[in-house]
Amino acid sequence: MGQRSTSGAAQQGTLDSDELRLIDAWWRACNYLSVGMIYLIDNPLLKEPLKVDHVKQRLLGHWGASPALSFVWAHLNRVIKRDDLDVIFMAGPGHGAPGVLGPAYLEGTYSEVYPDKSEDAEGMQKFFKQFSFPGHIGSHVTPETPGSIHEGGELGYSLSHAYGAALDNPDLIVACVVGDGEAETGPLATAWHSNKFVNPARDGTVLPILNLNGYKIANPTILARISHRELEALFEGYGYKPFFVEGSDHAEMHEKMAATLDTVIAEIRAIHEKARAGGEPERPRWPMIVLRTPKGWSGPKEVKGHKAEGSWRSHQVPFGDVRDNPDSLALLESWLHSYKPEELFDADGRLMPELRALAPTGSRRISANPHANGGVLRRELKLPDFRAYALEVSHAGQVLQENTRPLGEFLRDTMRANMSTFRVFGPDETASNRLQAIYEVSKKVWMGDLLPEDEDGGELSRDGRVMEMLSEHTLVGWLEGYLLSGRHGFFHTYEAFAHVVDSMFNQHAKWLDICKNHVPWRASVSSQNILLSSTVWRQDHNGFSHQDPGFIDLVTNKSPSVTRVYLPPDANTLLVVADECLRSTDCINIIVADKQKHLQFTTIDEAVVHCAKGLGVWRRASNDEGEEPDVVMASCGDVATQEALAATAILRERLPELKLRFVNVVDLFRMQPASEHPHGSTEREFDSLFTVDKPVIFNFHGYPWLIHKLAYRFRNHEHLHVRGYKEKGNINTPLELAILNQVDRFNLVIDVLDRVPRLQARTAYLREDMKNAIISNLSYAHTHGIDRAEITDWVWPD
Amino acid sequence: MGQRSTSGAAQQGTLDSDELRLIDAWWRACNYLSVGMIYLIDNPLLKEPLKVDHVKQRLLGHWGASPALSFVWAHLNRVIKRDDLDVIFMAGPGHGAPGVLGPAYLEGTYSEVYPDKSEDAEGMQKFFKQFSFPGHIGSHVTPETPGSIHEGGELGYSLSHAYGAALDNPDLIVACVVGDGEAETGPLATAWHSNKFVNPARDGTVLPILNLNGYKIANPTILARISHRELEALFEGYGYKPFFVEGSDHAEMHEKMAATLDTVIAEIRAIHEKARAGGEPERPRWPMIVLRTPKGWSGPKEVKGHKAEGSWRSHQVPFGDVRDNPDSLALLESWLHSYKPEELFDADGRLMPELRALAPTGSRRISANPHANGGVLRRELKLPDFRAYALEVSHAGQVLQENTRPLGEFLRDTMRANMSTFRVFGPDETASNRLQAIYEVSKKVWMGDLLPEDEDGGELSRDGRVMEMLSEHTLVGWLEGYLLSGRHGFFHTYEAFAHVVDSMFNQHAKWLDICKNHVPWRASVSSQNILLSSTVWRQDHNGFSHQDPGFIDLVTNKSPSVTRVYLPPDANTLLVVADECLRSTDCINIIVADKQKHLQFTTIDEAVVHCAKGLGVWRRASNDEGEEPDVVMASCGDVATQEALAATAILRERLPELKLRFVNVVDLFRMQPASEHPHGSTEREFDSLFTVDKPVIFNFHGYPWLIHKLAYRFRNHEHLHVRGYKEKGNINTPLELAILNQVDRFNLVIDVLDRVPRLQARTAYLREDMKNAIISNLSYAHTHGIDRAEITDWVWPD
Repeated sequence: MGQRSTSGAAQQGTLDSDELRLIDAWWRACNYLSVGMIYLIDNPLLKEPLKVDHVKQRLLGHWGASPALSFVWAHLNRVIKRDDLDVIFMAGPGHGAPGVLGPAYLEGTYSEVYPDKSEDAEGMQKFFKQFSFPGHIGSHVTPETPGSIHEGGELGYSLSHAYGAALDNPDLIVACVVGDGEAETGPLATAWHSNKFVNPARDGTVLPILNLNGYKIANPTILARISHRELEALFEGYGYKPFFVEGSDHAEMHEKMAATLDTVIAEIRAIHEKARAGGEPERPRWPMIVLRTPKGWSGPKEVKGHKAEGSWRSHQVPFGDVRDNPDSLALLESWLHSYKPEELFDADGRLMPELRALAPTGSRRISANPHANGGVLRRELKLPDFRAYALEVSHAGQVLQENTRPLGEFLRDTMRANMSTFRVFGPDETASNRLQAIYEVSKKVWMGDLLPEDEDGGELSRDGRVMEMLSEHTLVGWLEGYLLSGRHGFFHTYEAFAHVVDSMFNQHAKWLDICKNHVPWRASVSSQNILLSSTVWRQDHNGFSHQDPGFIDLVTNKSPSVTRVYLPPDANTLLVVADECLRSTDCINIIVADKQKHLQFTTIDEAVVHCAKGLGVWRRASNDEGEEPDVVMASCGDVATQEALAATAILRERLPELKLRFVNVVDLFRMQPASEHPHGSTEREFDSLFTVDKPVIFNFHGYPWLIHKLAYRFRNHEHLHVRGYKEKGNINTPLELAILNQVDRFNLVIDVLDRVPRLQARTAYLREDMKNAIISNLSYAHTHGIDRAEITDWVWPD
Repeated sequence: MGQRSTSGAAQQGTLDSDELRLIDAWWRACNYLSVGMIYLIDNPLLKEPLKVDHVKQRLLGHWGASPALSFVWAHLNRVIKRDDLDVIFMAGPGHGAPGVLGPAYLEGTYSEVYPDKSEDAEGMQKFFKQFSFPGHIGSHVTPETPGSIHEGGELGYSLSHAYGAALDNPDLIVACVVGDGEAETGPLATAWHSNKFVNPARDGTVLPILNLNGYKIANPTILARISHRELEALFEGYGYKPFFVEGSDHAEMHEKMAATLDTVIAEIRAIHEKARAGGEPERPRWPMIVLRTPKGWSGPKEVKGHKAEGSWRSHQVPFGDVRDNPDSLALLESWLHSYKPEELFDADGRLMPELRALAPTGSRRISANPHANGGVLRRELKLPDFRAYALEVSHAGQVLQENTRPLGEFLRDTMRANMSTFRVFGPDETASNRLQAIYEVSKKVWMGDLLPEDEDGGELSRDGRVMEMLSEHTLVGWLEGYLLSGRHGFFHTYEAFAHVVDSMFNQHAKWLDICKNHVPWRASVSSQNILLSSTVWRQDHNGFSHQDPGFIDLVTNKSPSVTRVYLPPDANTLLVVADECLRSTDCINIIVADKQKHLQFTTIDEAVVHCAKGLGVWRRASNDEGEEPDVVMASCGDVATQEALAATAILRERLPELKLRFVNVVDLFRMQPASEHPHGSTEREFDSLFTVDKPVIFNFHGYPWLIHKLAYRFRNHEHLHVRGYKEKGNINTPLELAILNQVDRFNLVIDVLDRVPRLQARTAYLREDMKNAIISNLSYAHTHGIDRAEITDWVWPD
């Protein structure tokens, strides 16, 4: 098992002496820039002896991961240039930003997008100063970095981002450096399996390069401290063919890396040729590289008697007391001089021509590859007319249908019209979420082994475009990589388990916020569309652990510029919302809609009007006829709307003199002031719907206090009484669960009675009826295991 | 590489024919109970022909994973009984609850804790009916299940839970069945590496049993569809010695499993003997089992012409139309009869004596093992007196100290006093978070390879008790397993990346809520203590991606019965809070405290008094002297408190006639009404601190709207003006970041001027000064890269 897959050391002579000298010089230039970024505020070319005033007052940045990143970059450039390859770079150890910023500057791209960081001494000084400096750029590969679609601020997602970018880009190679720290995270550990979802005939290539620099912040890494045999077996087990490039001698390592990269590129080409010659493509053993180099490679071997190169001590700034300690100042100066800057840059600070010639030009530069600014490649999604999928709703509130099923048909035809730029992602639940119509056009991609029984309803195919793996992390990583490289996608998941990717949402929202509002050269990308289905209210067989509507709470903490939340109450409003989301850019759109059968309330025409407003009065459920009502009943969410409507039906029948207004909210951010969110409501809009002093009973899909969090500035907030999920549940019938959390029709009627003072005295009989209804419905459910059939009838009388 | 580690098939004759017959009968009894739970509401022993009325009206549950779970259980019982082993069971596929509930019932434990589910026909009928039935128990291994500390509702954590339970339990074997669906999740994929943190001399054993039943809800699984060679290499790469038990024939599989289990137990014993003979323990290759069985094993081979056993169609209820379709009713009846219940249960419904004899007795029963009800084993943590670690604070607001450093010393001595029942967990950041004093007593456990340079500050040791791995998922999984099996622990992490484990928090909170409030036989366990450090306000070199104080928002959505959040403003309050948290039970305690140097405000005596109240007036920063103030300045969090105090210092100096009250909040839930949270405030308490009509400027550590979410019911809410983090940041000095989010002293002074009407006219000069201060401080930061030194001086004049 061993020999076949190791490489490098055996092959020699890939580089001639000139090539070796030049590639090493280019790498030295990168490293010089890295050290300069971390330490220098002036004297960028070391033209005068280094003085304290040339050093930043506060030293911030990460040196340790940087040299290996630019080492890989330098070697990629050689093969890109030679073979005219299309390559982007994913820096897993994104905190090693100097190792990415340096190459981008040397390739001229940095100066093109930030002209003040020009290719001369003055520009270099600004380039150094801005790094990890207040008011300027971060020490991670932030969105301001040209050539990047992956920040690496939070670890775990480099490899899934890489695979997402490679899908449907047959000629693209995504070189993904995975840090051995990041490799310990769960999301990264399972993302290796992405190779079972890549079709070599149609998709591009991910070349993973595991950089074993041995250390995290203060600890060794697991993968650097297991045997070679285990390491090799692990990646063979993951389905790769690992090649090892190990050492620290610069010249030897250049030779090994060049030879290995040649082998690997040849392997990739052979895989493509075989797969693209026709016939059913099989899963190949894709090559990957294990690059074992010292942490802080080329830096000081020792600092104050302690090992520095090859130690966790190189993780950030190897020595910090440069302004206070002359020895440290001298060490820094000799370290900088060790790269021989005078051989690398001319007197004006411009990279020497023979070194400039090493990098590719134009859009072949990794730092200028358009796939890493995917908006420039993005084509509009071709969308069918959503009206064609509408449900016929001749009698509102009478027909039960699965809300997500028409959406599945709409997505099916969206897929059909965009067969190389649109994908649907979900953790094993496309059919469970009633979206299986998509399979009529494209099945689930599956490059694992196939069995005869898969023919019977397995819906698997080598060229499927539906991505299903039981890892929300991997799915969302794929989707983000796919979107940021200029395509379109749709992710659906269980509402409760969206929390698995909370932190990925946070990071993507931050990325979009910065791109949209602070990085003008980044073109708009498609929004990330997330459907939360199998919601809290219908966990009939899964119970408490599957009940959590709190993902949208998280969403409301992020920038209003990029966050949208929709809770369509039925199938037709869901279609309208989905259409809007699929057209939008630079946002994260959350749609909450359950998959079970629910009552249908709106025709498609009504849905269009209602969704355009985002919230509004439903006249047929109201009887205030334009006057000031006694009470406002409001709802947001499918089950919440059904129960609120049922409550108004009871009230209209039993208390016809009560003036009642029914308001439904589809676009959650309409509940915030316009000053806080672009979809927010003006005070006048809010007051005219919810009144300024009448009680409002608001039946909400999620945790009730979210509505208070959004609406607390509005005038009538003090009369806003919100019902929602409050962590009461187990195995329950739908009505029982509603009752436990008091979002049911009976409790809502009681809420109204409690809050309209003139009713309180003379409605004891109705209150009693409601209490009895609660008791008898619970008793029925506990005896028969189901709700009484008639409870859905009593909603919206014609 | 191959032969050495496969097993099972070669060895025959482990079981004699009687043993084989009996173990198969016990397993049949389990399967019979599983099918009964899913389908039957009556006629539990099939004494009369099956009729529609015997079948539940709604069929809910998961059959597919159940048979393999009870198969493993049955075989474990054989070796437990023979060798008097101490074994608990972790059901990764927790939705296969029937496969766990059945054995618990057969062992008599279920009837002991739920006497109405007695060991007779009547009890069995109740046992069947309650399963996945409204108002009763879930279809997962919920907290109501004796013998379990792992629900499996959300997938990914079985293996880390298992390892957590095994730590410091040298004689315990945790048999952990990992489903091949769960194996695709990130958290599980990295948890295999937990074997690098288990010391065989001191810790117990995890025996992972990967059950390849081949399918998830609707898809094949990755690990079931790769080659045998890849599968074997993967687990060798993870550091295990895999044994394969594969097949479907019941008798053959009993033989293979028995033989393999004998081999595996012998291997474990050999590892222990070697490691416990003395000398430095090395990492062994722990055995694990790959159990490949059909999904829905022993169920119908076909249903309506489609493959059922061995297909995803067996995932939940293999056929549901039993009440409508006589063929299906007949199929169910013959399926049930295939287990020959009359051979398994006597006429009264009691398990036959020869089968009862197969299970161990008393606390050796897996279902009654006290490690799975860890509270019964828990001993109080021996805590040193926290006062001994207090900082001397002779001049409040003048000395800068790292808030977490004294905590590190307190934890060090806590560790010393509890060397087999307390552990500290963190992702590579114990030293970064200034807790490194702990290493004086116990280093980081490391069973990977050791290098000579580790001696120089590596702080690694085979018998360390500090757990560091770059996987928050694994760490929290270990901690949960450790706590639920009766021990104590402390987890610290970067505040922003606590979101990585949002969903684990949700699930643990739900588990604790049910145990505490609904399962009286579960004994109290130690609280989960989580320190969020490296907070949003001090990400000087990491920037925007590391700024997220929203984890505590999530916490406020879960049951008030189990959630606590503390924001101590300085080192001494942090000590007091930590002491309280370490003593508490059945809660999740979140402590938010930054690691950087901060001003110290309270002596330890003041800290004790202040923390006991949870919030209170700081008189030295106030000048209202018991009268009604003009304005209340409130703060919560370390940086927020420093800035709010600085604002009051400015105001006292510049507007001495302004009556100002300063309130600090340590216990966040004091901001909620007492009706909502056990730590909440009464209306009287709240009104007396915050007044009923004066402006309150509340400077908050986190997202500002969280305070509104908590406090919206209080009378003075409409005058509550909250400042906090609002997603504005990048690389910033501390003061610059505060200014961007308007939590800084200067903006707070302006807030006061804006909100005290009588000040507005005559304070233009002060407002102008504040604006100038903002401009000049930002300018200084952008020029020099640091804050002006004097900004911390101006806080709390004596």
